[in-house]
Amino acid sequence: MPVETVIQAARDLLGDRLATSTALREQHAHGEDTHPPSMPDAVAFVETTDEVARILALCNQEHVPVVPWGAGTSLEGHVTPARGGITLDMSRMTRIIDVSQPDMDCRVEAGVTRAQLNTHLRDAGLFFPVDPGTAACTIGGMCGTRASGTNAVRYGTMRENVLGLTVVLADGRVIKTGGRVRKAANGYDLTRLFLGSEGTLGVVTEIQLRLHGIPEAISSATCQFPDLGSAVDTVIAILQMGIPVARMELLDDVQVEACIRYSKLEGLAPLPTLFFEFHGTAAAVAEQAQQAEEIASTFGSQGFRWATDPAERGKLWQARHDAYWAALALKPGHKGIATDAIVPISKLTEAILGAKEDIAASGLTAPIVGHVGDGNFHTVILVPDQPDGLARAWDLDRKIVARALSLGGSCSGEHGVGIGKREFLLQEHGAEALAVMRSVKQALDPRGVMNPGKIFLN
Amino acid sequence: MPVETVIQAARDLLGDRLATSTALREQHAHGEDTHPPSMPDAVAFVETTDEVARILALCNQEHVPVVPWGAGTSLEGHVTPARGGITLDMSRMTRIIDVSQPDMDCRVEAGVTRAQLNTHLRDAGLFFPVDPGTAACTIGGMCGTRASGTNAVRYGTMRENVLGLTVVLADGRVIKTGGRVRKAANGYDLTRLFLGSEGTLGVVTEIQLRLHGIPEAISSATCQFPDLGSAVDTVIAILQMGIPVARMELLDDVQVEACIRYSKLEGLAPLPTLFFEFHGTAAAVAEQAQQAEEIASTFGSQGFRWATDPAERGKLWQARHDAYWAALALKPGHKGIATDAIVPISKLTEAILGAKEDIAASGLTAPIVGHVGDGNFHTVILVPDQPDGLARAWDLDRKIVARALSLGGSCSGEHGVGIGKREFLLQEHGAEALAVMRSVKQALDPRGVMNPGKIFLN
Repeated sequence: MPVETVIQAARDLLGDRLATSTALREQHAHGEDTHPPSMPDAVAFVETTDEVARILALCNQEHVPVVPWGAGTSLEGHVTPARGGITLDMSRMTRIIDVSQPDMDCRVEAGVTRAQLNTHLRDAGLFFPVDPGTAACTIGGMCGTRASGTNAVRYGTMRENVLGLTVVLADGRVIKTGGRVRKAANGYDLTRLFLGSEGTLGVVTEIQLRLHGIPEAISSATCQFPDLGSAVDTVIAILQMGIPVARMELLDDVQVEACIRYSKLEGLAPLPTLFFEFHGTAAAVAEQAQQAEEIASTFGSQGFRWATDPAERGKLWQARHDAYWAALALKPGHKGIATDAIVPISKLTEAILGAKEDIAASGLTAPIVGHVGDGNFHTVILVPDQPDGLARAWDLDRKIVARALSLGGSCSGEHGVGIGKREFLLQEHGAEALAVMRSVKQALDPRGVMNPGKIFLN
Repeated sequence: MPVETVIQAARDLLGDRLATSTALREQHAHGEDTHPPSMPDAVAFVETTDEVARILALCNQEHVPVVPWGAGTSLEGHVTPARGGITLDMSRMTRIIDVSQPDMDCRVEAGVTRAQLNTHLRDAGLFFPVDPGTAACTIGGMCGTRASGTNAVRYGTMRENVLGLTVVLADGRVIKTGGRVRKAANGYDLTRLFLGSEGTLGVVTEIQLRLHGIPEAISSATCQFPDLGSAVDTVIAILQMGIPVARMELLDDVQVEACIRYSKLEGLAPLPTLFFEFHGTAAAVAEQAQQAEEIASTFGSQGFRWATDPAERGKLWQARHDAYWAALALKPGHKGIATDAIVPISKLTEAILGAKEDIAASGLTAPIVGHVGDGNFHTVILVPDQPDGLARAWDLDRKIVARALSLGGSCSGEHGVGIGKREFLLQEHGAEALAVMRSVKQALDPRGVMNPGKIFLN
């Protein structure tokens, strides 16, 4: 058996860092998703780029699948070894290799988590902005899905904040892409080719990241509206005014009620709500906030509730980040499916109000949260505990995606394709563009060993 | 002859828009560079994506090279048909297909120029920021080189401002990449794969662009320093403070003297000078400018000279954009080679002071200008009118690139690889990464008909 050959050779290389116990294999059979789990044949707890390279060369030689694993926080089945093989657990590659304060950049290993990095950076007055909500996710995993989150509206996504990569290719060759410069016109943009490729083209082992200075002043506010449309119109007007908000998040009435209960938020009614954060100098923050508040008031808002001290601000954003868990807590014991549609801003009201109608028609519970400054919104569809529960939930997800596509949007703003969104790519990109993606895949991974069953349907 | 076959078929398709006159072929034999010119066999003045697709299918079938041509402003030989074939002149594809004010985006044909677009957008209160200096360059050409320019420090490059593309592949298939959303995690980032591929993977025919609101207030200033190092240190400090300057350009003493003469700039001494522009609300602009001026003064600057009214501001930036011509006017009749090195910001002083030493040692005249907020700087090496003049100029260019590479930089910040920078890619990327680029090229253009002789040495 080829996989036995690989396991034996990997054990020779890694010793007891090559695990085949059922417990560890089960732990690596799925992420935070509802797709059918599937166990790897073994889990390799790699510690260096060289170890990754040796294992990839082995797997390629024996035609054995390889699945990279960061923290297992994927919502789309990326980390499920759909065809078995070796899972590369990167969680021990946690070195922060270098931080340059004058260049505002750093180089880290792929297993470094967002939280670990920002704790490390704090004393240097720097931070890494991309914030998908969970503190546990790794920088490597965030590269895989081209992650973004609450402050992408101001600071961009992984696409804008990754300067370069070390990547191990399917056959074990190691390349460096990009570098430390802010821009370059020096050949094909391999960095951006690997970002968002979900482990299907190679394994990212090191990342050069762009950092930002911790702002002099930060203030946060919530703002409630009589209806969803007014909240979304406020967002559009703020973007058009060019106010550089750092975060601008929408929660619908159902989600706000869930957060009030789960996070003990005070002073909010169960109404559509925007969460704001402003970064800058004290004067700039004050001016931005005043402008945003004025716009919101013209759309019928009830004024800003401020959270200027760090503790209060922390509580507010923790509540936003816990929105997923707050949603699940509405129906204890139920699973949730997180949708991830994105549309052009001008279509956001239509997309969200349409989603509300679909949710009502489905009879399911599905609170809405959104990175609305980007046109991206999520629903957490609570899966009813019934035989057809999952099918009904997926059916609702498909309706929300279909409307986003019909409005010129995409099936995924930030969660990625993985297993769950593969069925939409043909409609979204067209057959020829999808064929180009396949030809790139074929060129870089001719044996199809890199995370098979993801992105492409077959 | 295969090329005769293609020319006959193209003439059937385009009529007198297929030109074979020597005058037109000579006009399309080179850009604004000093590489050896080489004529195409014919120039096709295409008007639609479909015409591009038909000609590419023909050329691919007959193994005839195709070179896309925008405005011919390339500085690295991109538009030179090094192996003959058909030049696709895109300059008649000038439709602005759609502008959305609420989404702040637009879709244009590849031959639309930067100037044409911004004139069109003005009444909508929008602008397209990427500004490589010349007004004549086309959006399609700017995609080819992943162009940037004076305000990339604030608004990003083509990488950040292109949302999607229509691309004709080597065999005539037409794909759409990206779309209208600000971000997406929906498969491989084909948009960024084609940006900067210099016509070697396909021909861009339409572009979806991200736009920005014209700022409420704009002000510009110049600021002079006793020495280059102090000017660069000012830039680093301003970036670290996170002041969102829109433009921050460096001119060395030689370049300032050239601009004073050429553009009749008043009130400036021949000293290292920073040109600033600030965008925002009136209050934000005032605060940013005050902070920048304070920082500059701690590095020995002589204070800001303001140009707040549009006419004065226009004169100042026209002078900056004419720096290349001002440099050439130092030695009438001489050609110029524009270098384009980029380094991490912390290495900028070393790179620029090193370049000054190299220039002095070479005995050549070469003023320095730089988009220093990105770590990118240019010298215009004036080619002496001597038999070995060009060789001496290239030798100086190589020294400047070699230092940039040794400092962790790149051979090109924005001009692209073309013919002139091919020799540096092996050192810059390493053999394996370059092999990955080649395998992508092979996958998308197996017959090698797309702009051969560019990016890759053979």
